Amino acid sequence: MIKLYDFELSGSCYKIRLLMNSLGLECEAVNVDFVNKEHKTEKYTRLNPFGEIPIFEDGHVRLRDAQAIMVYLARKYDKSNQWYPDDAEAMGRIQQWLSTGGGEVMNAAGARLVKILNYPLDLEKLHAGANRVFKIMDDHLAERDWLELGHPTIGDIACFPYTAMASEGGIDLSPYPNILKWIERVKRLPGFIPMPGIPAAA
Amino acid sequence: MIKLYDFELSGSCYKIRLLMNSLGLECEAVNVDFVNKEHKTEKYTRLNPFGEIPIFEDGHVRLRDAQAIMVYLARKYDKSNQWYPDDAEAMGRIQQWLSTGGGEVMNAAGARLVKILNYPLDLEKLHAGANRVFKIMDDHLAERDWLELGHPTIGDIACFPYTAMASEGGIDLSPYPNILKWIERVKRLPGFIPMPGIPAAA
Repeated sequence: MIKLYDFELSGSCYKIRLLMNSLGLECEAVNVDFVNKEHKTEKYTRLNPFGEIPIFEDGHVRLRDAQAIMVYLARKYDKSNQWYPDDAEAMGRIQQWLSTGGGEVMNAAGARLVKILNYPLDLEKLHAGANRVFKIMDDHLAERDWLELGHPTIGDIACFPYTAMASEGGIDLSPYPNILKWIERVKRLPGFIPMPGIPAAA
Repeated sequence: MIKLYDFELSGSCYKIRLLMNSLGLECEAVNVDFVNKEHKTEKYTRLNPFGEIPIFEDGHVRLRDAQAIMVYLARKYDKSNQWYPDDAEAMGRIQQWLSTGGGEVMNAAGARLVKILNYPLDLEKLHAGANRVFKIMDDHLAERDWLELGHPTIGDIACFPYTAMASEGGIDLSPYPNILKWIERVKRLPGFIPMPGIPAAA
């Protein structure tokens, strides 16, 4: 049985729950008390020295980092070969958005931590970084329905949660109509599941 | 012919040059005037809206992001199947360090930009972030010669340049003896090439 060290309000953990649901996989979820920083305790830094969740276990394989877990899950369990197709160009294109989802989009995650958990981070800088990447994503999505390949991939999932929850960090998505349409498209995927802050499609 | 939009002093561009040399590939290198921010001009933001280098072209395939370019190169051209082996566990394990190399290790890149190009960034915060990830890498390398799989992968290359050039950003690597040994190991790989700031092995 796959085990996921999980926190319901974490967009990074949600990436794994969303992909697993899309692949028809079940897991044992272990709730981590993120608010009280249980992920920074020795119990968890032994599993992931970076002190972050999600942490993932499948038999003897233990992985940290939402993007790494998605690469593993897609390669191992995606019989449709859709989420991370097995060819160089597809993998390279998707990797661009794995980097963006774990990188620039995390500005929006940081802004959300300031707003909902009072993290002492530079909100103005986080907003600027988030708006910069959202402008790029919005322009990119003007001509396409999905970030790459014309269909959903783990690149979309990597960028989705903290974009969809940007308003919780005080970021207005109304200047980005193509992002708003893409969010609705993700919500209408057959394997979609909601989380607090990301309700099902209207 | 592969085309690389390149800057000699960029550790991110160097990742691509190092992997290509290891794979026996040649490219046309186009020098970008990074110091005068040519990568932020419209000529280059048309190629990569993120305004960053490297940018890579191989026929009709254009990619941004050093990690994405390495995934493409390894999958497409690595006949040894060593640098990014074709199985779920290997890819997941390597992806962890692609994320780290494009993420936490970039604290050391930022510190270097402060020191050599006077970028207005928070040096103290960058040093703290770099030392945090270097401690984790040093502990990880205490029991292994390479970051994953017991042999060099694109995970190693992703983390190598800005770690090896940490002193240019004012970061002392002497508390991290396992990292220092790993740097020497990379320098002795058959395909190794130096760059300014990363001289060949003594």
